[in-house]
Amino acid sequence: MRIGVDHYPEQWDRSLWEKDAELMAKTGVRVVRIGEFAWSKLEPRDGEFDFEWLDEVIAIFERFSIGVVMCAPTNCPPLWFYKAHPEAVQVGPDGVRIQTGIRGHRCINSPIFLAYAKRITEQLIRRYAGRKIIIAWQLDNELEAYPCTCEVCKDKFRSWLSDRYDNIEAVNKAFGNSVWSLGYSDFCEVEPPTAYPKAWQNPALCMDWYRFINDCLYSYIKELSIVIRKEDPKVPLTTNTWLCENAPDFYKLFDNLDFVSYDNYPALTIPKDPEEFYSHAFHLDLMRGVKEQSFWVMEQLSGATGSWTPMSPTPRPGMIMGYGLQAIAHGADTVVHFRWRTAVSGAEMHWHGLIDHSNVPGRRFFEFSELCKTVSKLKVLENTQMISEIAILYSPENDQAFKIQPQTEGFYYLEQLKYFHAAFTRYGANIDVVSPESDLSRYKLVVAPTMYIGDKKASENIYRYVIQGGTLVLTNRSGVKDENNNCVMDTLPASYKELIGAEISEYDPIGAQEQTIRDFAGNEFVCRQWCDILQPTTARAYAEYNDNFYRCCPAVTMNRYCGGVAYYVGTVCKSDFYESFASNLMKQTGIPRLKGLPRGVEVTTRTNGLDDFIFFFNNSDAHVTIPLPKPMYSIIDSVGKDKLELGPFEVDIVRK
Amino acid sequence: MRIGVDHYPEQWDRSLWEKDAELMAKTGVRVVRIGEFAWSKLEPRDGEFDFEWLDEVIAIFERFSIGVVMCAPTNCPPLWFYKAHPEAVQVGPDGVRIQTGIRGHRCINSPIFLAYAKRITEQLIRRYAGRKIIIAWQLDNELEAYPCTCEVCKDKFRSWLSDRYDNIEAVNKAFGNSVWSLGYSDFCEVEPPTAYPKAWQNPALCMDWYRFINDCLYSYIKELSIVIRKEDPKVPLTTNTWLCENAPDFYKLFDNLDFVSYDNYPALTIPKDPEEFYSHAFHLDLMRGVKEQSFWVMEQLSGATGSWTPMSPTPRPGMIMGYGLQAIAHGADTVVHFRWRTAVSGAEMHWHGLIDHSNVPGRRFFEFSELCKTVSKLKVLENTQMISEIAILYSPENDQAFKIQPQTEGFYYLEQLKYFHAAFTRYGANIDVVSPESDLSRYKLVVAPTMYIGDKKASENIYRYVIQGGTLVLTNRSGVKDENNNCVMDTLPASYKELIGAEISEYDPIGAQEQTIRDFAGNEFVCRQWCDILQPTTARAYAEYNDNFYRCCPAVTMNRYCGGVAYYVGTVCKSDFYESFASNLMKQTGIPRLKGLPRGVEVTTRTNGLDDFIFFFNNSDAHVTIPLPKPMYSIIDSVGKDKLELGPFEVDIVRK
Amino acid sequence: MRIGVDHYPEQWDRSLWEKDAELMAKTGVRVVRIGEFAWSKLEPRDGEFDFEWLDEVIAIFERFSIGVVMCAPTNCPPLWFYKAHPEAVQVGPDGVRIQTGIRGHRCINSPIFLAYAKRITEQLIRRYAGRKIIIAWQLDNELEAYPCTCEVCKDKFRSWLSDRYDNIEAVNKAFGNSVWSLGYSDFCEVEPPTAYPKAWQNPALCMDWYRFINDCLYSYIKELSIVIRKEDPKVPLTTNTWLCENAPDFYKLFDNLDFVSYDNYPALTIPKDPEEFYSHAFHLDLMRGVKEQSFWVMEQLSGATGSWTPMSPTPRPGMIMGYGLQAIAHGADTVVHFRWRTAVSGAEMHWHGLIDHSNVPGRRFFEFSELCKTVSKLKVLENTQMISEIAILYSPENDQAFKIQPQTEGFYYLEQLKYFHAAFTRYGANIDVVSPESDLSRYKLVVAPTMYIGDKKASENIYRYVIQGGTLVLTNRSGVKDENNNCVMDTLPASYKELIGAEISEYDPIGAQEQTIRDFAGNEFVCRQWCDILQPTTARAYAEYNDNFYRCCPAVTMNRYCGGVAYYVGTVCKSDFYESFASNLMKQTGIPRLKGLPRGVEVTTRTNGLDDFIFFFNNSDAHVTIPLPKPMYSIIDSVGKDKLELGPFEVDIVRK
Repeated sequence: MRIGVDHYPEQWDRSLWEKDAELMAKTGVRVVRIGEFAWSKLEPRDGEFDFEWLDEVIAIFERFSIGVVMCAPTNCPPLWFYKAHPEAVQVGPDGVRIQTGIRGHRCINSPIFLAYAKRITEQLIRRYAGRKIIIAWQLDNELEAYPCTCEVCKDKFRSWLSDRYDNIEAVNKAFGNSVWSLGYSDFCEVEPPTAYPKAWQNPALCMDWYRFINDCLYSYIKELSIVIRKEDPKVPLTTNTWLCENAPDFYKLFDNLDFVSYDNYPALTIPKDPEEFYSHAFHLDLMRGVKEQSFWVMEQLSGATGSWTPMSPTPRPGMIMGYGLQAIAHGADTVVHFRWRTAVSGAEMHWHGLIDHSNVPGRRFFEFSELCKTVSKLKVLENTQMISEIAILYSPENDQAFKIQPQTEGFYYLEQLKYFHAAFTRYGANIDVVSPESDLSRYKLVVAPTMYIGDKKASENIYRYVIQGGTLVLTNRSGVKDENNNCVMDTLPASYKELIGAEISEYDPIGAQEQTIRDFAGNEFVCRQWCDILQPTTARAYAEYNDNFYRCCPAVTMNRYCGGVAYYVGTVCKSDFYESFASNLMKQTGIPRLKGLPRGVEVTTRTNGLDDFIFFFNNSDAHVTIPLPKPMYSIIDSVGKDKLELGPFEVDIVRK
Repeated sequence: MRIGVDHYPEQWDRSLWEKDAELMAKTGVRVVRIGEFAWSKLEPRDGEFDFEWLDEVIAIFERFSIGVVMCAPTNCPPLWFYKAHPEAVQVGPDGVRIQTGIRGHRCINSPIFLAYAKRITEQLIRRYAGRKIIIAWQLDNELEAYPCTCEVCKDKFRSWLSDRYDNIEAVNKAFGNSVWSLGYSDFCEVEPPTAYPKAWQNPALCMDWYRFINDCLYSYIKELSIVIRKEDPKVPLTTNTWLCENAPDFYKLFDNLDFVSYDNYPALTIPKDPEEFYSHAFHLDLMRGVKEQSFWVMEQLSGATGSWTPMSPTPRPGMIMGYGLQAIAHGADTVVHFRWRTAVSGAEMHWHGLIDHSNVPGRRFFEFSELCKTVSKLKVLENTQMISEIAILYSPENDQAFKIQPQTEGFYYLEQLKYFHAAFTRYGANIDVVSPESDLSRYKLVVAPTMYIGDKKASENIYRYVIQGGTLVLTNRSGVKDENNNCVMDTLPASYKELIGAEISEYDPIGAQEQTIRDFAGNEFVCRQWCDILQPTTARAYAEYNDNFYRCCPAVTMNRYCGGVAYYVGTVCKSDFYESFASNLMKQTGIPRLKGLPRGVEVTTRTNGLDDFIFFFNNSDAHVTIPLPKPMYSIIDSVGKDKLELGPFEVDIVRK
Repeated sequence: MRIGVDHYPEQWDRSLWEKDAELMAKTGVRVVRIGEFAWSKLEPRDGEFDFEWLDEVIAIFERFSIGVVMCAPTNCPPLWFYKAHPEAVQVGPDGVRIQTGIRGHRCINSPIFLAYAKRITEQLIRRYAGRKIIIAWQLDNELEAYPCTCEVCKDKFRSWLSDRYDNIEAVNKAFGNSVWSLGYSDFCEVEPPTAYPKAWQNPALCMDWYRFINDCLYSYIKELSIVIRKEDPKVPLTTNTWLCENAPDFYKLFDNLDFVSYDNYPALTIPKDPEEFYSHAFHLDLMRGVKEQSFWVMEQLSGATGSWTPMSPTPRPGMIMGYGLQAIAHGADTVVHFRWRTAVSGAEMHWHGLIDHSNVPGRRFFEFSELCKTVSKLKVLENTQMISEIAILYSPENDQAFKIQPQTEGFYYLEQLKYFHAAFTRYGANIDVVSPESDLSRYKLVVAPTMYIGDKKASENIYRYVIQGGTLVLTNRSGVKDENNNCVMDTLPASYKELIGAEISEYDPIGAQEQTIRDFAGNEFVCRQWCDILQPTTARAYAEYNDNFYRCCPAVTMNRYCGGVAYYVGTVCKSDFYESFASNLMKQTGIPRLKGLPRGVEVTTRTNGLDDFIFFFNNSDAHVTIPLPKPMYSIIDSVGKDKLELGPFEVDIVRK
């Protein structure tokens, strides 16, 4: 377990370099990420490289034994590059070339950009290959599925389609181009689905465009990684990612990389409405699930955020410590804070680091210093991992599909995953968030929300899991589309009909209207957004609708299928339903429930096979008391405890 | 009375064609519209035509005696056409050529597009002219007053102005171009008023641009119709329209066509606020009034709508039947449902047809099937028509004028028409919505809301009507503009001063603020948006203001003028006022009032001169009972009734 | 004291010219502004001038002894000019050349435009130089800091940077371009910070762009003024301005002009929430402060506003009179009403003048006529001026800085100035709003809100003021930035630390969240947006926070510094706090407080050294009674009074 910081020596006077490193070392910082946007300092003019300053920086960190994450600074080519090669600047969704002066303007498909990006990367790795102090390399920064529509990208998309479908007739068939006379007679007629109004575009074309973009990201990362691995085959490679509107396919993005890095900015205000998801726990589990292994936080919240948006509140006391440990509690092994000191210039100068502009360490820094100390006590956690009995399946293509076609007012793909995640969290369970193609046999319970886009591997995987005795929860909008994002010509949920033992005779997209359902025990819950009207064949009702023309029709069903059980949730409820449902599911599958946890307390377990280490994180601004079933040893306070008293955002870790 | 469906055989596997037609015939479908967007299937390559598949389709429908509406598929040229002639693609209001990949991209003024459009239409009509099974032709689809600003359109606009005004000085005078040094010295300096920010553009220029666009639509329709009539002079021609933001001048659009077709999508949620207009009855009356004759619904609601927008709820039970009969109750003779089966691909795949993607007929289809059966009982309604004693005047130019210049917060032209329409509907009256130039002598009562734009024919028509003894209601913002959309230099309501016997000494655009008025009987009503402060000359007050510096000034006046009566409503109220006012007006003009109708029940009458057939439509989700003044014979249930019991959205039709 | 009107003879039939002038004279109008947008009438074709009509107009006004403000009509070049020189049209922030057809399209940096603008101005001044009846010239109209990004502007910006910084390395340093590899290697790489998304742009670049634009405005005004002064060195020059989103640096704009002209459109609805600032008093004081002398209103509210926006309500009775006198009460000597008669054509036809479209004078005109009469009684006010003991400092660069970087949700620079202004207004004090570089020694109390951008002259001025015994109020976000809009590397408030005797250990940007503070007397007030956590060195607490981790930390401090006192307000409150604070400050500094003024009553004093004339303006819709401390003589009613009874918007002026 290591704590680190992001640092930009090129932004600071040389006289600060040694002082900063010294203070880092003294504080307990063990990792520093550098070089992220430093291209113009490394190559001030085309082909003229200047590494001396970086040599010095690295030497300093080496002297203080602080491990370095070196960045390939390809996110921001120097302005001289753009001036010489304006064709390498991205073209926005409106067809207009964007203006330089910010960051990330490069088109990653541009051959000339790629040549320069590889050259600077090669220069860097040649100089620093094999240096022990360099513990990992980060490629580029926060790559998004951003829709550049320059001519290079358009042509590449046409080639991509040609590779995928072989001939134009196959594309027409896949896209259903008989609608609106949109049949292509030649690949050259294909245009990206980015122009206005985007929403009228063919959903099949949009999905393939998303796949294409992800393939571009994959091959961009691959090309850069080849450059590095050629010189230093063993150094671990990563890139940092986050959950943005243009989120890439994380599975694909990291496929060729050694570990996942996540930029972790938990919410700074605690919402009053418990329906609002502010915990980042789901995102952390999602990131752990990308490669199904421990991950890094490469940028961790350190102060008030904001720059182009207004500033957020500053972190409350306890948040720096608590959110840092929360990341570890969910499988992060290294947590690198963004950033050491707040920038005094540039557009991001209000995105606060650990140390303020004044360079005078303050409250947040002292708390960070405590965090470093606490983490130094966690050696016992080395080689521990998280083992979950529950999995929630996350599919980038399903996520994207609902951005392409909104289903109904208020319907969001991730919301359903988060409702389930929050519900299991209430009972202190470890939860994996993994790919639908992941090995499910490990789990006692798998939740597969809205398996919308046809994915044969995924559906076979799910069937196999249930057949082998698993308990599965499937939800509304599953089986709706084929692999091309066209509707299937079949009674829904199509390929899952047999599994759930029920058919959807009709659906009602009620949107923001609220209705209610009643479960088998007579409990009532609000539902909205979507109502599948189910006709059981072999299933029986878990809950029924109370309203509308489908009053008394099943809303949630349970079906015994071969050795397993398949539930189907045909509507979208609020958290009370998911909590009640989760409790029943865990009871039935024999997954232990921690009952009576105060709201906001998150409990996860890391294990090394011999010992279990249980994290209790009070993700609230209240003081809470948690009785323990038996006295346990706190590795934070090094004492035995029979109950835990946690202040706001406080964490305790006990050995079971 | 016929029920039909919209169908797109080119989107489905050939194996389904016969099965579909067979099921249609069995269900009672008597009309099918085909070919609407099929250009690329009919002309897969430039000049290469393929009609064989269409021959087969037509032959199938002929075999099942289902009348065919054939479409000239000019809305969607094939992509090969756009690739070869990119100059034929529309240019958006921002001056950027829009991107193909959706639909309706063609500039209808493009000579090359027009040549291709006429050629495909000519090919079609030559092949199918005289075929009995083809009962009508539809030209293009949902033509809007869409502002293409390509060079061809700009030049055409300049020529149009030159034709209209002869010389540039006359244009300058008409546009008041002495303001802001905007005088043209040559026609080439004229630009369309579409650029940013649109709102600052000269209202006179904007109005002429709207007239120009409508003339373009007119001549486009005319050119296509000439192609068809040359080969088949008798086949009825239409185009389908709807009430969109860019609504065309319906009177002009259909001037050269044989009947009006309307795309009818009534609301799927019943608003709780009775101020919200969700009934489509007004729109149906408007469409009947365009040519003052029976019309078709060419696209009728069949399921949940939505595709680029989130999906709506699915139609409640009764809506398919009820909305179908409502259309007939307002003068539709043929109701064609959109669409037979929901598309499984393309951008519109969530705009639901009668049959779901699964191709398994369900609840909505069965109700549609019932509708077909019910309509088959309505032979007795052949040759019936609607005769109204009340007319509301609808003027496309007034409608447009308020889009060009918003008057005050919350002020909408159509809202005033709808308030009056809803009010008369409460008393079971037939209502015509007709052009201000229509023959008004037929009516006992005419409502002329906001006669804003100077229209000499209209104002003479209105004067004539009152002089001949008619009762007229004029409202605020009348007489404000000359025919060029400039303000008149006259006390308002200018040309209508004499008619209403009052002058407007001042007005107060109060917007969303609410005040009250009090009528002669002491009833109080909320008013807002606009307050004309009236000074009667010969009129007397019907209602007065309660507030502001014009407290006790008349808000609504009544004036006896020659043989008739002219009311003036100087403000905008809520439905309670209009209901009370309508009741008084009907009483005074001797128009029978059906009192005590439950809210939501719409009553209209079709007559053949001998028999009256009264439709009772329960446009609500409640069960209602309507006592009849005397026992009447229900042609739905074939029994005599002395009261009607109607479930949600249920219709009964009785012979008087 | 003079009342005038804006007039556009070129928009009206020649037959009206004399009639209009006659009525003006009869009404008491003493000033008329003409020619503002008349370029195309004056130069109908390139180089062909027609002044005869203007000769006639001027002759008419001369005959009626109405002073003329002549305009250089450079805001609106004729369309023939744009057609011949399209490169002179502005390019919008999106890089697209805007479309002509509205107004103000010209790029003021365009050499060809400038040549034509100077030529038309020269023609005008040569013809009319020395004419007594012309009392002033207005240059252009409502110049904004509008971001044209044409190539000329870009190049000019690059030269401007080169002049300012000498070499590109100095620019890089000033802009902190080591961030994100944004270092320029050549001036040609500089782009304006206008493209999307604007918010991500470098704040230092944005600030220099704003300075550049203001320099462009300055030199544009200067070039035009040289043309005029060459021919007529004594005629007073002005331009008219207003407070828009793109507000220019008023101090710079008027630096080379003789007096300030303001376009004054007070609110037409009285908000229910007293937190909403609807009084224009602040803006009037701001305008008086620009040149620290009497100013003109060049456009005064005369009727309902609106044209591209919906119309506002019409002025309530009393507003025409009251707002006219309010302007005089705050230092306006001439109030010119916009406009004589409402335009009947053009985009602005709903922006109402004194006389309606009908040309029939009505209520508003009669009130205006009363205003003229009242003002004719105010001869005694000639040569009076306003002397204030309180100043609020307004800095255009600070204003702009918060547009470039929003601090936190709800935080607005001007709001803090307005809160203080409204608070002192409650106690009937004259208030100056002046530049931070103004001579402060005149004041007993100076409020310096958010001195954000580094400005050495300003901070020295402020220190000097306190050292010499002044009482100063500084607020949050002071000392944050250096002169380049980069953060200073110092504990806040940096250069002001010593002055306020406190340091900010941390801040909390709480945005819209509300917390409370408690002052030394135990009063509680809501605070929000921003919380500086203060550590006093020599200061003591005036108020403390009640909430959060900084409960009991000082929120407002008071520090005795040398001979003076410096307060610091670390948060943003609501009006109740500022009223209480203002009262204490005035008490302590010995500034007289008028207590018990009814809410909305504004009291200001003009003095000639011998006599004080006190204006009482009832800026509310209530009737109020104001007891006078002793009987005073009303120069409005020419009687002595011991109390004032004021109706809505009524003004009285008493001699003290």
